[in-house]
Amino acid sequence: MLITKEDIKSLDRIKRLNIINSITGIKPGNLIGTVSSNKVSNLAIFSSIIHLGSNPPLIGMITRPTDEVPRHTYTNILEQGFYTINHVPLEMTKSAHQTSAKYKEDISEFEACGFTEEYHGDFIAPYVKESKIKIGMKYVQSIPIEINGTILVIGEIQNIVISENIISEEGYIDLEHAKSVGISGLNSYYKLSLLDSYDYARVKP
Amino acid sequence: MLITKEDIKSLDRIKRLNIINSITGIKPGNLIGTVSSNKVSNLAIFSSIIHLGSNPPLIGMITRPTDEVPRHTYTNILEQGFYTINHVPLEMTKSAHQTSAKYKEDISEFEACGFTEEYHGDFIAPYVKESKIKIGMKYVQSIPIEINGTILVIGEIQNIVISENIISEEGYIDLEHAKSVGISGLNSYYKLSLLDSYDYARVKP
Repeated sequence: MLITKEDIKSLDRIKRLNIINSITGIKPGNLIGTVSSNKVSNLAIFSSIIHLGSNPPLIGMITRPTDEVPRHTYTNILEQGFYTINHVPLEMTKSAHQTSAKYKEDISEFEACGFTEEYHGDFIAPYVKESKIKIGMKYVQSIPIEINGTILVIGEIQNIVISENIISEEGYIDLEHAKSVGISGLNSYYKLSLLDSYDYARVKP
Repeated sequence: MLITKEDIKSLDRIKRLNIINSITGIKPGNLIGTVSSNKVSNLAIFSSIIHLGSNPPLIGMITRPTDEVPRHTYTNILEQGFYTINHVPLEMTKSAHQTSAKYKEDISEFEACGFTEEYHGDFIAPYVKESKIKIGMKYVQSIPIEINGTILVIGEIQNIVISENIISEEGYIDLEHAKSVGISGLNSYYKLSLLDSYDYARVKP
């Protein structure tokens, strides 16, 4: 089946959202933990987290501006400068999805959706106790994507909290045993099973 | 286990690459098809494809500049203005991984790695016949990420080629039946199994 640019344009808005949000393939399921200036913790699911580079260790995320509707996560990141990225645990996809509901700013999604706050040292942003892979982030900069009004938010990894049994001596992380999940579109959650790992590819003689 | 910023900095380069490339979770496995000005087709695996917006339908990818080492994909995109994004098929992860070897520019990875070129209408870039989900893209712009010298390459969807049996009436795409795959780090491939889909989340009364 061939879907043309004109077909896409004339689609019902929800159907277009569903198709275009899932057409790129699987996306990582992460919960972003922040705290507001009023000391209310916030937790929100994001599927737009992307690796930007290893040295310095940088992670990006795509968001929309705060001036359209309240975006507590981005507001808290800008105000506090720190946030956490936590893998969604396999057993808690429904609770993780529930964090996308529009809770008022004096409500913590940790409590409302059944997650537990965890703190490490003097790092101000809350980690998710139930996640097996959690990253403490420092906000670096926002790059506007003017063509559609979105923003690439860049942060630098400050620390990683991870169970020893899911990371190998070489630094490979086992996403299957970490019980991490993938997201397709806006509302479908996928389990991950390791197929295979391959060596660095070289041209065959 | 807590890995600090200083630990990360002092890690062996390969181990750091492995950890930081897999810490964000699962990434989509896609093959990008292009053609050079000398009419040589090119195919390369990318795990840095990201949804940017649905209206207009925009997709981004992270790459490095062409002036460091030859980057045939990005060079071809800039010269020709069109490219394709094709989901890696589950049965062909090894062949897909092999496209990351440094083939010379007069060699087509389609032939070298065992994929078949497919063309639709007058669209100049080659699609991958073996993929169940393929997207024809028009290059829009490059946004430099100055902090680490990478580039966000933005394109607009021109058309989608997809089997009817993996897309629902509402526009949900079934990545399990499409036999799409996820990638962790630089060399691990994961199978996807649907866990659940949830309705749009609302605050519970």
